[in-house]
Amino acid sequence: MTTNAGTKKSVLLSGIEVGNTAICTVGKTGNDLFYRGYDIQDLAVHCEFEEVAYLLIYEKLPSLTELAAYKTKLKSLRNLPSNLKNALETLPATAHPMDVIRSGVSILGALTQNLEMPSVDQIRHQADQTIACLGSILLYWYHFTTHNRRIDLETNDDTIGGHFLHLLHNKPPAESWVNAMHTSLILYAEHEFNASTFTARVITGTGSDFYSAITGGIGALRGSKHGGANEVAFEIIKRYNDPEDAEKDILNRVANKEIIIGFGHPVYTIADPRNKIIKNVSRKLSVDQNNMKLFDIATKIESTMWKSKRMFPNLDWFSAVSYHMMGIPTELFTPLFAISRTSGWTAHIIEQSRDNKIIRPSANYTGPERKELLPIEKRD
Amino acid sequence: MTTNAGTKKSVLLSGIEVGNTAICTVGKTGNDLFYRGYDIQDLAVHCEFEEVAYLLIYEKLPSLTELAAYKTKLKSLRNLPSNLKNALETLPATAHPMDVIRSGVSILGALTQNLEMPSVDQIRHQADQTIACLGSILLYWYHFTTHNRRIDLETNDDTIGGHFLHLLHNKPPAESWVNAMHTSLILYAEHEFNASTFTARVITGTGSDFYSAITGGIGALRGSKHGGANEVAFEIIKRYNDPEDAEKDILNRVANKEIIIGFGHPVYTIADPRNKIIKNVSRKLSVDQNNMKLFDIATKIESTMWKSKRMFPNLDWFSAVSYHMMGIPTELFTPLFAISRTSGWTAHIIEQSRDNKIIRPSANYTGPERKELLPIEKRD
Repeated sequence: MTTNAGTKKSVLLSGIEVGNTAICTVGKTGNDLFYRGYDIQDLAVHCEFEEVAYLLIYEKLPSLTELAAYKTKLKSLRNLPSNLKNALETLPATAHPMDVIRSGVSILGALTQNLEMPSVDQIRHQADQTIACLGSILLYWYHFTTHNRRIDLETNDDTIGGHFLHLLHNKPPAESWVNAMHTSLILYAEHEFNASTFTARVITGTGSDFYSAITGGIGALRGSKHGGANEVAFEIIKRYNDPEDAEKDILNRVANKEIIIGFGHPVYTIADPRNKIIKNVSRKLSVDQNNMKLFDIATKIESTMWKSKRMFPNLDWFSAVSYHMMGIPTELFTPLFAISRTSGWTAHIIEQSRDNKIIRPSANYTGPERKELLPIEKRD
Repeated sequence: MTTNAGTKKSVLLSGIEVGNTAICTVGKTGNDLFYRGYDIQDLAVHCEFEEVAYLLIYEKLPSLTELAAYKTKLKSLRNLPSNLKNALETLPATAHPMDVIRSGVSILGALTQNLEMPSVDQIRHQADQTIACLGSILLYWYHFTTHNRRIDLETNDDTIGGHFLHLLHNKPPAESWVNAMHTSLILYAEHEFNASTFTARVITGTGSDFYSAITGGIGALRGSKHGGANEVAFEIIKRYNDPEDAEKDILNRVANKEIIIGFGHPVYTIADPRNKIIKNVSRKLSVDQNNMKLFDIATKIESTMWKSKRMFPNLDWFSAVSYHMMGIPTELFTPLFAISRTSGWTAHIIEQSRDNKIIRPSANYTGPERKELLPIEKRD
């Protein structure tokens, strides 16, 4: 590893196998990714997001009939209970959108017959509802607080990504954007024992419920060293006027040992296999709009980082460009990641609950030896 | 280890040191517990809960002046923002109380200037507010949904435990009950890298915020293999009419290899050092009320489990009796644990944020080898 963000010494438990999984392999040859045995290069090009969510949650790729039924089910679960809408209306416009969806999922659990140690079928249903309505939670709050408008959450779009864009922009999205969302959401869906997934597994291991595990996953994903990185990546890209500006400034920052978020990865050693896929998506979106500025800046920084540091962009880098080109506000980037990753979290929640083990490590004690308890009157 | 609940094979990462800590040692000699070098036997007898919370959060035992200032600060932070009250009113009486406090803390974060990677001083202030108002969150919802009453959250009680009992029973508590709460909350405050604390550390490791970490901790604590065990323990104790009934039935269940929740522990090998302390508390509460029934049943099961299985009760066993004797509804037992443990979680959040490392383990892959992606028309 030569990356900054990914140096082994900044990662605890790096490379330590803490459990079994049949869901995913990451970087076995340095730059590959497989979901349940399927190459991400195939899934991202040939599948809709709903197929991949089904693969992760139901453990097989759906047939045509199964996919149609699944999309119909998801479409039927988009609306929110009125109590949840009322609760979302109490959250201010200044709230962090990840705090909003974390609260929304937590409340959804409180409103649901929320049993401990649910069956696999119950988990799957809870997951389907959560994936179907996470966009509704986010955008109901967003429009209520930003535009003082109570939006209708049901649309005719038959995909998660299309529904999201429709609610956001208040009009049906172009097919090319729906396809871009499929690819992006597929790429973000699953990534083995990353920090948010591991969080969901630790919570599930205690015998706790689905919503607690997802709430914890969202909380972990929020961090700038994890899901929050796609927002930071965009802040970097957008601060430049042109590729030459960008190159010059990035070289300066690299010389000053600044970490450039969006580059390097703790698991991939050669390249992030998702980068070339999402880079193509962002190029196409930019060409369609005849606006290559951000794509060109991002590409120049990519080559600059490779030449100067032998560091490669991870999924977040061109995801940021793609989302921006679809008019998605920066602060909604990480919530989109969460919508997608809920499918992967669910696969791990099911696997951990079958495993039926609590995760309880030990620590190396570095604190004081035994101390005498002084009466409070004698303490400094 | 000879315990059921605590067999090594049911615990992942058991005994594996996944990081450093200066906060706590558990079971170094098989039956001891130290917070920052102080023996739990001393802390539980000589301290108030607020002293121990201060020790955990501020890293030293307070002087008389510091303790007085700290209690004044906590007292000033008991009320809730009106938006949070409104959100709590949307949650039904049937909600799981742990879902309520998980949602309450999440919303508190959404209402707060909630920065990523807060400073240590900011974390401490957020923790103080959370500890001060968790009882308010729980009991505001409880009385609103159970008694259709919007209670006043500010009382003259100068302790967390006294405030809780006052809000619950709508009258100032007896001093003996306040003392029992001090001891109980001190015993529940901290326990090294248990599952909920580890959850909070994994979340903090991504650079996420305080409320995300606490929300995750509450979610993990909910599980019946973790904090939820004190409620299950009470369900066991209360199902018997007398000690003889209990002994006979427990022996039957043990013969049928049933796990008796409240016994055994994955870390302690000889005894849970907290048991004798909380057993004394529960005895005193029972004697004061001239009602030894549950205490006698719990004690008989303790001796039965020891004779038949060489298993010892953990903290949950007589905590359940103690809480019941103070008129606390069973479903509020685990939330009380959460109020106390927020102090320990905070100590670990501070430690992990100083450590500045992401926790990202690996997994042993047990899934399928590479599969060909069939076109959807050709899938079964």
